[in-house]
Amino acid sequence: MEKSEKRNGDEVKLIPIKTKVISPGEDLVDLIPLESLRDGDILVISSKAVSTSRKRLVYLSNVKPSERAKSLAKKFEMDEKLVEIILREADLIIGGVKGVLLTLKDGNLMPNAGVDRSNCPKGTVVLLPENPWEESKRISEEIMKRCGKRIGVVISDSRVQPLRLGTVGIALGGYGIPLVTDERGKEDLFGRELEITFRAVGDQIASAALLLMGENGEGIPMVVIRGVPLDGESNEIKPELSPKKCLIMGSILKRFPKLLEESQ
Amino acid sequence: MEKSEKRNGDEVKLIPIKTKVISPGEDLVDLIPLESLRDGDILVISSKAVSTSRKRLVYLSNVKPSERAKSLAKKFEMDEKLVEIILREADLIIGGVKGVLLTLKDGNLMPNAGVDRSNCPKGTVVLLPENPWEESKRISEEIMKRCGKRIGVVISDSRVQPLRLGTVGIALGGYGIPLVTDERGKEDLFGRELEITFRAVGDQIASAALLLMGENGEGIPMVVIRGVPLDGESNEIKPELSPKKCLIMGSILKRFPKLLEESQ
Repeated sequence: MEKSEKRNGDEVKLIPIKTKVISPGEDLVDLIPLESLRDGDILVISSKAVSTSRKRLVYLSNVKPSERAKSLAKKFEMDEKLVEIILREADLIIGGVKGVLLTLKDGNLMPNAGVDRSNCPKGTVVLLPENPWEESKRISEEIMKRCGKRIGVVISDSRVQPLRLGTVGIALGGYGIPLVTDERGKEDLFGRELEITFRAVGDQIASAALLLMGENGEGIPMVVIRGVPLDGESNEIKPELSPKKCLIMGSILKRFPKLLEESQ
Repeated sequence: MEKSEKRNGDEVKLIPIKTKVISPGEDLVDLIPLESLRDGDILVISSKAVSTSRKRLVYLSNVKPSERAKSLAKKFEMDEKLVEIILREADLIIGGVKGVLLTLKDGNLMPNAGVDRSNCPKGTVVLLPENPWEESKRISEEIMKRCGKRIGVVISDSRVQPLRLGTVGIALGGYGIPLVTDERGKEDLFGRELEITFRAVGDQIASAALLLMGENGEGIPMVVIRGVPLDGESNEIKPELSPKKCLIMGSILKRFPKLLEESQ
């Protein structure tokens, strides 16, 4: 994708897209007011909207919990069927606290492998989108096809942070903008090379969008962000970080090498 | 502070305040274009700006490293004097990876106890603000005194996330707006009670501001955020979460109870 223009000093706008309740199977692009978009806008879409549109719903009544699901459900006071679905979705169960499992999925640390009971029809749970990178590319290309505008797309979810109360945003995938920018070699105000070398722009964007999306009872599954000064090209730096390279998990792994072995 | 009006569906604006390089001792309120502010705006100020204004700078040449600082510096390939300052600032050293210590400070998980070498005069490091809650109250009240406008204030910093590359925003303190909102009892689109019960609005706001602030080489130490739909009153829910109540740290503590004992 082309170089985006850096517009330092200008305002940024967050514009909510309010929609009706999204039905399973519905094409999200049909719900976007394409005429109001501008070249270079970033469209943030909640993972819940993407999953619903892609029919990533599971009916709990069809689920038969395994022995391991039953055991974990008992340990953490959870619904056995929900735990069974989490086990299918998660790459690793690290542990849990009452009511929630701490899991790894697609390189991300998240509660319940992203399986969620909010904002989906009764008796169902919603899974995360299967491939948020591909999905954001498809949506960006479909918008280009329909109206000729170059739009960056970010698929966002909410996540918890260590030792902080409440949810912030995370970019599960994106297209057309860098989700991480490399600041190495740049200088600070005093001409010193910056020590913080990467910025999680995608996660910052997802958090900004959450200010309008709320937790989705608001009926705002998409937010347009206009005017973010983004330096340089859309690049290929992935936001997922291997545990050893991560300050938080790497430090803990050094003391407790068993951290990333499956919890029973 | 009074109830803020919920304006669901409206746009949010992020407005950068570009300033000259801030000098130690300078009053930040002098740098704010008060005439452009509106009642209900949120002013996000970088912790670096607050610390500089409050002369929270340490000259490295005056620092004598302790034996423990020397030992940790060797282990993690760091500057002995920098480690000494980190030891003085941190409440706990959890561990580290090459070049960075993982610390607890004021209930927050952060690299190097917030001690930073970027954007401060040569030969110095900058510490975090002493009391960001008090400081944001003072700034909000000083603005009210000078121009009669009711402005929420958030003091922001950047932080790293587990298994994610790059920095996002964190609200170290604030005044006049809730940094965490309680969503318990609210309903989702299908009338089901929300499972995600707290939103880290302060951290979302800090991340949104970072989209314009960058890492401060940009010379944008403050950002005005206008139009965030905030429900209800400014409340007293603190964003810091005790380790046992935290999904991430609580899950790890259950498996490794020594996690929050000092690392040597």
